[in-house]
Amino acid sequence: MPATHDPRPIGVFDSGVGGLTAVREIFRALPGESVVYFGDTARVPYGTKSRDTVTRFSLEISSFLVRQNIKCLLVACNTASSYALDTLIRRLDIPVVGVIEPAAIAAVEASLHGRIGVIGTMGTVASGAYATAIERLAPGAQVIARACPLFVPLAEEGWTAHPVTRAVAEEYLRELRNGDLESLILGCTHYPLLAPLLADVMGPAVTLVDSGAEAARAMAQLLRDRGQLAAGANPSHRFFLSDEPRNFGRVAEAFLGGALPSITVVDQTDLPWFERTHPDWTQASRP
Amino acid sequence: MPATHDPRPIGVFDSGVGGLTAVREIFRALPGESVVYFGDTARVPYGTKSRDTVTRFSLEISSFLVRQNIKCLLVACNTASSYALDTLIRRLDIPVVGVIEPAAIAAVEASLHGRIGVIGTMGTVASGAYATAIERLAPGAQVIARACPLFVPLAEEGWTAHPVTRAVAEEYLRELRNGDLESLILGCTHYPLLAPLLADVMGPAVTLVDSGAEAARAMAQLLRDRGQLAAGANPSHRFFLSDEPRNFGRVAEAFLGGALPSITVVDQTDLPWFERTHPDWTQASRP
Repeated sequence: MPATHDPRPIGVFDSGVGGLTAVREIFRALPGESVVYFGDTARVPYGTKSRDTVTRFSLEISSFLVRQNIKCLLVACNTASSYALDTLIRRLDIPVVGVIEPAAIAAVEASLHGRIGVIGTMGTVASGAYATAIERLAPGAQVIARACPLFVPLAEEGWTAHPVTRAVAEEYLRELRNGDLESLILGCTHYPLLAPLLADVMGPAVTLVDSGAEAARAMAQLLRDRGQLAAGANPSHRFFLSDEPRNFGRVAEAFLGGALPSITVVDQTDLPWFERTHPDWTQASRP
Repeated sequence: MPATHDPRPIGVFDSGVGGLTAVREIFRALPGESVVYFGDTARVPYGTKSRDTVTRFSLEISSFLVRQNIKCLLVACNTASSYALDTLIRRLDIPVVGVIEPAAIAAVEASLHGRIGVIGTMGTVASGAYATAIERLAPGAQVIARACPLFVPLAEEGWTAHPVTRAVAEEYLRELRNGDLESLILGCTHYPLLAPLLADVMGPAVTLVDSGAEAARAMAQLLRDRGQLAAGANPSHRFFLSDEPRNFGRVAEAFLGGALPSITVVDQTDLPWFERTHPDWTQASRP
């Protein structure tokens, strides 16, 4: 007989604070659930770093979250989802949901003729993870992907409607605008902050897909299907960061939409620690 | 009797590859010297991170370089120099040179009336390290400092002469252009890549000061004064990175000016490891 409820928290991790957009969606869709969040603000960003390094960071953080007794893990970071999801699924005993598959499904559903754009970090785009997922769901779909490395720093600068950001978007999105797209996957947790500007540049015919929100909805469905929703009405949330960034308050508020959480800064030395002995990731014991 | 020569290498560290501009200057000024370089590309950038975290990273890397038998340490990263230099000087038994003091000296020398601008990361500017150093050298000097967080990603995107970069520079430098400055300290290792554009925006009356190059010249002088130059004519160089970034080749070439070094990727687990037990940084033993 399946469980009918599970009071343990949902684990969410991201390279920084952008994953709070996924948390916001969990709060909205599942107000009774507790969340434990980890943002790797000491080592952010992941988008320019290698597959090996992002995988190692992801293993460290996931192990930390498992020790917080989470019932499932949402990988809100697109780069970590692109590079490390298979490794995480193989190594963890709990359900793991990344952003790629849910966003790909939403984009395919929004694209009658399969003309889909993807924007993300260099790592996410280079991995080809979205193109692979879309091809599996809709063989023959046309995917145009473009790395947009300046979007994250522009969003963090708060220039979400600045003429400079518009000029950058027009340059980055030139090929995508010519591609007669039906949908555009915002393949980075920061990009929803730029959504009004991106919608304006792409035009009304293109549906924007928020990868973090889609992943949160997929996680909600998974918990419903497994009978693992929390029954209680008193959720409690914990937010861990590996460094307290200077402008955390403002940025967190932008992502979470108001309710600013209190946070705990976790020393990197408190994280489980992995040897880079590829292809098998070996957890080392700490002294 | 002082030593007359010392064949050990010069250690240089930076948050990433920007410190190669200082290495370039060492190669030019001291062609007989060997260099061991460490770029923390797995955790770059430092400019948005806290004093504690940047200090811990700096201690880890400095300890790693000391194990490579360096005779002195050049901290090429402005943020690390701003936050961690005092700690490094206190903890290491070798001479440590940062970028702040040498660049402040050069700016004061170039500024008859003491009107000096400083641009750098959020951390460097928030620390007030340049203003403090300049005030000590030239009491009453007027210092205008401005954080320019988009300059690093713009330089890494290769947009060193792009209209977007000019628009960003014009916005960031507006107050500095109105300050009737005599010199402008480029307080970040990436900014020399933007020097032609910055010179154009600031106008010919403003002397640009390259902090990495000034620090390298100060290091050369220090080794001469101490009789610690290498006598040999066969220097050998080693380059360590904590991650191999995607575009390392292109970026390294831009900074080093042609001769692309072979690199070794150092696992974070190979770095000495510090507990964050402020205010005393305790080195923990690795298992």
